Amino acid sequence: MSITTPALLVPTTGSAFERGTVQRRDVGPHDVLIDIAFTGICHSDIHQAREEWGSAIFPMVPGHEIAGIVREVGDAVTRHAVGDRVGIGCFVDSCRECENCLAGEEQFCLRGNVATYNGRYYPGPRPLDGTPTYGGYSTQIVADENYVLHIPDAIPLDTAAPLLCAGITTYSPLRHWGAGPGTRVAVIGLGGLGHMAVQIAHAMGAHVTVLSRSLAKQDEGRALGADEYYATEDPEALTSLRGRFDLIINTVSAEIPVDRFLATLRLNGALVFVGLPETPQQFRVFSLTGARRSIAGSNIGGIRETQEMLDFCAEHGIASVIETISADEVTAAYERVVRGEVRYRFVIDTATIAAS
Amino acid sequence: MSITTPALLVPTTGSAFERGTVQRRDVGPHDVLIDIAFTGICHSDIHQAREEWGSAIFPMVPGHEIAGIVREVGDAVTRHAVGDRVGIGCFVDSCRECENCLAGEEQFCLRGNVATYNGRYYPGPRPLDGTPTYGGYSTQIVADENYVLHIPDAIPLDTAAPLLCAGITTYSPLRHWGAGPGTRVAVIGLGGLGHMAVQIAHAMGAHVTVLSRSLAKQDEGRALGADEYYATEDPEALTSLRGRFDLIINTVSAEIPVDRFLATLRLNGALVFVGLPETPQQFRVFSLTGARRSIAGSNIGGIRETQEMLDFCAEHGIASVIETISADEVTAAYERVVRGEVRYRFVIDTATIAAS
Repeated sequence: MSITTPALLVPTTGSAFERGTVQRRDVGPHDVLIDIAFTGICHSDIHQAREEWGSAIFPMVPGHEIAGIVREVGDAVTRHAVGDRVGIGCFVDSCRECENCLAGEEQFCLRGNVATYNGRYYPGPRPLDGTPTYGGYSTQIVADENYVLHIPDAIPLDTAAPLLCAGITTYSPLRHWGAGPGTRVAVIGLGGLGHMAVQIAHAMGAHVTVLSRSLAKQDEGRALGADEYYATEDPEALTSLRGRFDLIINTVSAEIPVDRFLATLRLNGALVFVGLPETPQQFRVFSLTGARRSIAGSNIGGIRETQEMLDFCAEHGIASVIETISADEVTAAYERVVRGEVRYRFVIDTATIAAS
Repeated sequence: MSITTPALLVPTTGSAFERGTVQRRDVGPHDVLIDIAFTGICHSDIHQAREEWGSAIFPMVPGHEIAGIVREVGDAVTRHAVGDRVGIGCFVDSCRECENCLAGEEQFCLRGNVATYNGRYYPGPRPLDGTPTYGGYSTQIVADENYVLHIPDAIPLDTAAPLLCAGITTYSPLRHWGAGPGTRVAVIGLGGLGHMAVQIAHAMGAHVTVLSRSLAKQDEGRALGADEYYATEDPEALTSLRGRFDLIINTVSAEIPVDRFLATLRLNGALVFVGLPETPQQFRVFSLTGARRSIAGSNIGGIRETQEMLDFCAEHGIASVIETISADEVTAAYERVVRGEVRYRFVIDTATIAAS
């Protein structure tokens, strides 16, 4: 028994999207069935659809920035009710037993959590368990209630969708490394992740600086909350910022001159990667020891922290800046994301998936 | 006016040591004159004497692990008295005004602190200010009382000397990254720094693992406090330790396989460099993001923390394991340090400097 739902599929590595259907499991006691309204396009969707991050499962239905409305709940569900505004992020289950899951850091589940797409449900007795997961480029999804977030009323579903990945990916390191009043935060890159990092760091009370390749988006960056804005294509810019920042959030997935950015950190400062460049990065140890600096990496966030982020965004009037597209535009949108031409996140109106 | 004191000099880059003299400034109101009893040989002495870390000042008198007795104090001195057992570490002054100095982190002085040797005193009105500094391979030294440490009675001066660099270099990151009961600390390399890291981490209550090239020093490592000991030349060793450690202190100054060590860190774990490899190091960002890991660097410690370390070592019966040598043996000792043949620190009996 299962639910058939329309979806946008990538039949094989790197191919264009096609309309089709996927099977969702029936609603179990702890499950919710969600009518998806909007799903964001994350750069990692593209990496996986093109199989750039290692072996992937095809056909693939990407999408882990999902916002919608609860249509049905299982008998044992307590966290959600029919009609609730909800979201799903990058994973739909985890082992719930390892030290990281018990600490509420399911994003680092030691068994490996169940990715929202391009993953497999844990083996088990339930229909479709052990089968591939399919993501949010689709009209419905079934998920365990514990991995479903509440979207506060103050945030429209379309601009909320990207918070489920881009929002938490930047919120989590800003919290972990203590961004707040009296701290100076730099954000490398003003794209899908960067435009969230700027808004959130600003709302946390930090002094925010954008380090972008050029000054092209300066006005927008300042409107989002940046106090300062520098073009890294100007070789003098980083030199003038030596010893300045407590925290740098690097949202760029390309190779960066790590040592030059490290030099802009003050004592105990951290350069945190949230993008995922494929090539190895280089640094000199002197760049770290000179001021007890760190290079670190952060990856989305746990369920509890994701809910905290959604509530924080609602409280501070923060959401993603989006361009809404239809199902027919997704293949072309991927090209625009790769060229850096989206300001700042594409969101698919999933009503258009089943329409034609 | 100045004080002439016998010393071991390196006349020019990489040459053998020669006996000679250097000038120390007269004892000013805030100064103490110290009769040096013992000075440790740090690997960084060798790097600087061979000008491997950039342009150096010659003739050079190395030595920043200095232990001795106060012979004379200036009129305004309040921290030390004649006859006190004292030590000097890696710096003898700092600006005292920058945010790092004010935070007690003079090792990261933004003006640049005054290195105990191969540095220059700040320009000023005092005789010899602005001139090169000369270190502890010598029989006497004059220094501002605020940069002179108390050596507790419980630690002999000879085994105390290496604490002033090797001790604080390992104590500081162990404290900063929270080594203690319930934490698992690994130490890469069991040399001058490593043998201190093992003792201190053990005394702090951490579970301590040594990651050495071979098992040659295993018995000694366990006697120093290691709970586990692995040979990294065994390719299986690191694989078996995946996700194990909270903190790795890397005391090795050569290139290491950073990603393989990062994989042995659990959630929020840090790989901290205290050695200073000259070549750039490489890492993959995935190695960090997979468990919010960090790569960091630490450099000695501040005056307050150095005193805390000495008191901690006295309380826990910790000191350096040394081989005492005479002035005539220093040139040969350098070769043995480079070959890794010392267990675990050479200490020069400075009484032998003036003797012949």
